[in-house]
Amino acid sequence: MTGKVICAGLGPGDPDLMSLRAARAIAGAHHVAYFRKAGRAGQARRIVEGMLSPSAVEYPMEYPVTTELPFDSPEYTDALARFYDDWADRLAALAATEEVLVLCEGDPFFYGSFMHLHSRLQGRVPVEVIPGITGMTGCWNATDMPITWGDDVLTVLMGTLSEEDLVRHMEHSDALVVMKTGRNLPRVRRALERTGRLDSAWLVERGTMPGQRVARLTEVDPHDVPYFAIVLVHGHGRRPEIAE
Amino acid sequence: MTGKVICAGLGPGDPDLMSLRAARAIAGAHHVAYFRKAGRAGQARRIVEGMLSPSAVEYPMEYPVTTELPFDSPEYTDALARFYDDWADRLAALAATEEVLVLCEGDPFFYGSFMHLHSRLQGRVPVEVIPGITGMTGCWNATDMPITWGDDVLTVLMGTLSEEDLVRHMEHSDALVVMKTGRNLPRVRRALERTGRLDSAWLVERGTMPGQRVARLTEVDPHDVPYFAIVLVHGHGRRPEIAE
Repeated sequence: MTGKVICAGLGPGDPDLMSLRAARAIAGAHHVAYFRKAGRAGQARRIVEGMLSPSAVEYPMEYPVTTELPFDSPEYTDALARFYDDWADRLAALAATEEVLVLCEGDPFFYGSFMHLHSRLQGRVPVEVIPGITGMTGCWNATDMPITWGDDVLTVLMGTLSEEDLVRHMEHSDALVVMKTGRNLPRVRRALERTGRLDSAWLVERGTMPGQRVARLTEVDPHDVPYFAIVLVHGHGRRPEIAE
Repeated sequence: MTGKVICAGLGPGDPDLMSLRAARAIAGAHHVAYFRKAGRAGQARRIVEGMLSPSAVEYPMEYPVTTELPFDSPEYTDALARFYDDWADRLAALAATEEVLVLCEGDPFFYGSFMHLHSRLQGRVPVEVIPGITGMTGCWNATDMPITWGDDVLTVLMGTLSEEDLVRHMEHSDALVVMKTGRNLPRVRRALERTGRLDSAWLVERGTMPGQRVARLTEVDPHDVPYFAIVLVHGHGRRPEIAE
């Protein structure tokens, strides 16, 4: 009998929003791995609280501590690469004979850390991925308004982009999702203002989770650095064009 | 006792990928409405096959027949508006005392037809929406590759856009999703070719459903008009920029 690695997308945070397949995989898992920051419970682990078998063995994959290293330094990049190498080796060894479940927030293939293991496991052990509802889908549902309709163009941006890059994309898109906000929020706000989108922007913090907050971005304290927060601008239903 | 309207996002097509909350709502529903084309079973209804209570009353909401009318004519727009008006009235009347479940493919707030009922039901009866995995998420999972990582920009486009619009967005985005392909596929292909993205484009047809097809777009017969098909270009992990 040979094993495999299964990565389950857990969805946006509310355990009730994970898929039937993910829930079944979690309930039946004997080996469960998940990413977390050192000293933290970890968001993925928190989502499955109460769902794991009492006999499941847990493998918290703790990111290397980075307080000493700038995140864009070669030293940090090396430390992170070694971390993924090590865990890929451990999971591959385990999955030679066992089924190993890796928990991932949202959808594993959408800005997910799992891809760093996925690429390293190719050709070594079978890998199966269970899709999940993305965090952004949970967030636009939290606003109770359609994010897109008709022929709207939706662009997903990272708050880490330069202000000029943000502006260029914001100018040409109907609907917007901006992730990785946090400390980048002042720059995101400036880009929204320059493109006339600030008044229609929403901030969703901890979407579908306890402590969820939905607010107009103009009403958020500029010094606030929200966690798990996404900025959204809803589309207004671009009319279909007449095909050529 | 008062009722409400619940819209359940069914996810990309595989019933096993719907959320725990959606599955529970479906199993317990006494009144179930769904959109379909006249004379067709309907994709949403097909996904829940075998999951409904035998005593559930079904309300197929059949789109007005359009063979006589161009889709962009005022007459067609009027017919469609009357269709949504009528169904909003019927569902509101029923939901005065009963719980009514509306089935929607994918996520209801992401290019979903339900929004036309959602807007018409506001202030009349309580409306609750259950998020779902979007069709595009199911499709990129079908390719077994991450669609985005790092600081990738993702743009979601409709194949109905003009070639110039498609080109403008394709030039500046790392990852691409193109929906509403079908007859628009030749134009989408030209825009991908002009922006040097054709060789990395994939076509996913019936993602997560029986008969799923995943193919490089260059290997798809140009005269093929696929159903439920999405074109994808994966991102390559844009490096984080140094924050200002």
